[in-house]
Amino acid sequence: MHILVTGAAGFIGSHTVLELLESGYTVLCIDNFANAISDEHGNAISLKRVAAITGKPVPFQNADVCDEAALEKVFAENKFDGVIHLAALKAVGESVAKPLQYYSNNLVASLNLIQMCLKYNVKNFVFSSSATVYGPPSELPITEKSQTGQGITNPYGQTKYMMEQILIDVGKANPEWNVVLLRYFNPVGAHKSGLIGEDPKGVPNNLMPYVSQVAIGKLPVLTIYGDQFDTVDGTGVRDYIHVVDLAKGHVKAFDRIKNVGNVGTEIYNLGTGVGYSVRQMVDALKKVSGRDIPVKVRERDYKLQKFPEKMTKFEPETIGVPRPGDVASVFCDPSLAQEKLGWRAENGLEEMCADLWNWQTKNPQGFSA
Amino acid sequence: MHILVTGAAGFIGSHTVLELLESGYTVLCIDNFANAISDEHGNAISLKRVAAITGKPVPFQNADVCDEAALEKVFAENKFDGVIHLAALKAVGESVAKPLQYYSNNLVASLNLIQMCLKYNVKNFVFSSSATVYGPPSELPITEKSQTGQGITNPYGQTKYMMEQILIDVGKANPEWNVVLLRYFNPVGAHKSGLIGEDPKGVPNNLMPYVSQVAIGKLPVLTIYGDQFDTVDGTGVRDYIHVVDLAKGHVKAFDRIKNVGNVGTEIYNLGTGVGYSVRQMVDALKKVSGRDIPVKVRERDYKLQKFPEKMTKFEPETIGVPRPGDVASVFCDPSLAQEKLGWRAENGLEEMCADLWNWQTKNPQGFSA
Repeated sequence: MHILVTGAAGFIGSHTVLELLESGYTVLCIDNFANAISDEHGNAISLKRVAAITGKPVPFQNADVCDEAALEKVFAENKFDGVIHLAALKAVGESVAKPLQYYSNNLVASLNLIQMCLKYNVKNFVFSSSATVYGPPSELPITEKSQTGQGITNPYGQTKYMMEQILIDVGKANPEWNVVLLRYFNPVGAHKSGLIGEDPKGVPNNLMPYVSQVAIGKLPVLTIYGDQFDTVDGTGVRDYIHVVDLAKGHVKAFDRIKNVGNVGTEIYNLGTGVGYSVRQMVDALKKVSGRDIPVKVRERDYKLQKFPEKMTKFEPETIGVPRPGDVASVFCDPSLAQEKLGWRAENGLEEMCADLWNWQTKNPQGFSA
Repeated sequence: MHILVTGAAGFIGSHTVLELLESGYTVLCIDNFANAISDEHGNAISLKRVAAITGKPVPFQNADVCDEAALEKVFAENKFDGVIHLAALKAVGESVAKPLQYYSNNLVASLNLIQMCLKYNVKNFVFSSSATVYGPPSELPITEKSQTGQGITNPYGQTKYMMEQILIDVGKANPEWNVVLLRYFNPVGAHKSGLIGEDPKGVPNNLMPYVSQVAIGKLPVLTIYGDQFDTVDGTGVRDYIHVVDLAKGHVKAFDRIKNVGNVGTEIYNLGTGVGYSVRQMVDALKKVSGRDIPVKVRERDYKLQKFPEKMTKFEPETIGVPRPGDVASVFCDPSLAQEKLGWRAENGLEEMCADLWNWQTKNPQGFSA
């Protein structure tokens, strides 16, 4: 099967492309470098490394999914058996400050892609959804059956929730389609090779890239926002998943379509089902790195678990976990993915941290070095 | 105040423009004739009649809100104090069959309009939402406080719900904005003059235009889908509102902004708060028209109140009330609009039917005659 992967040069994209190639799929990768690094020839550095690791060609085009004409050209010149749609703006805090940018970019890109799939008869659509679609307050543990867009506190999460709804409706109107919505929990780690990994632009928005930059000395200290939650040590608990496991989930989705045929619309949680606290994550990285990781705790009014009504601008310092509106613990029930996809996360906390550290030390400046 | 009205040539648009003019506002009207009738010069017939009724100019441009360049031209050449965004595809059944068309059209149009408002510093945004945002199962009576996108059974309703969410987030990020979300219940009737009214293309999607076309002999019979609901006579109960009352709600929204200044984001129900059954509506039109209105009842599995999982194509015969997924009774609590806008519906069932019949008999072929 020949798969179009959007957002392919990013963290999840590059790992997903690698696993697809290792499993015998062929791909066309597109990315607009909104959140990835190109070399001096306009190629994606991450994907060149995927080619080096796999020994296989990784065809790439610089294209923006929001650009209807550019996307049409891609579809006109290729014959795809399916798409994996990863391209999206993804910074939660920024989405609160710039909601229109997030809604426009993420919705229009996805609508364009659906339109092309309808026009060119590509019936297999795998979409990167997110644990954010559950929104607080969550009933925990989260199962595939619980569906709620209520209380999602940020436009980023809303775009994911809206796209789920749109794809469900497109699937209903086109019953020959297969729509697979993969709800990612918190991807961390890196490929064992240490050649590809997460390379956030600027100050990291997510916990573990932040922690590893503190460990390596690029950032001075991790600020934890709130250690009074009702959890093992008071800090927020999340379901972290090794990015290679996450990537394999996409392969399993296409394997299922190959084996079963018409599966209709399906929703899967991709997580480990186990939650770790911020402090547990920090301690685990300390252990594998042997480095000191300074931490300070800052209490704010987060225990209200309500998003400030009049939060008007993006506050860079609210980076960290938990963020405004966060709940104490979020972890998933991944049993449906195990049952139907034959998929489960194989890597635990130690591998996540060891592989992250391996990537970080081999690439202290990310792909740009 | 100078107001841009999108979808201005339609049923609600033309009545809203009329009431704005009567209250001293000036307007620019745009429409793409997706659901309105133009004369041989490309002008909107409905708006020419509004000019005739009011004796005031009604500037009009043929423009599609989805066309970013065309919309930008409108903003560059005019200075607006606010917008009323009515333009949308609105056929519930069609939206199930063609979800992408509905999501693309309604979302992209709205995102374009918000973008222009941000760019040209137009901070007052009144949006035509819909009772469909509540979705079944509804808790009744519906109040402004109840917010749910859960269980909305059709993409049309989803686009309204999503746009509410997007505008709420845009309002949060731009606290100097005024965002007024008007949740319409079921507009019927026509202006007293009988010069403007509802002129659906093809077979009407809504109850009362259908009933009046049966009364005048254009259609043979009204099919009622289900008369075993738990209501006064077994047929579905809805909150019908005279279109002139609905139109005045928009004027009141701008009056409030003029008087109060920065109101932030507000949501109002525009309905009477009184529900009438399908049979009550038919009987009322029978009375004012003196015509026979043949009715047949067709029982289907609508008592399940679930949308068929695999409904794959638009069934024209499902026109009527109730439709799949419909609940027995929907009526609103309009008290917040009364309290804050000083607005309440002044017309009752008899005026709705008399004015509808006046329009229907004076314009048996609608605007095309």
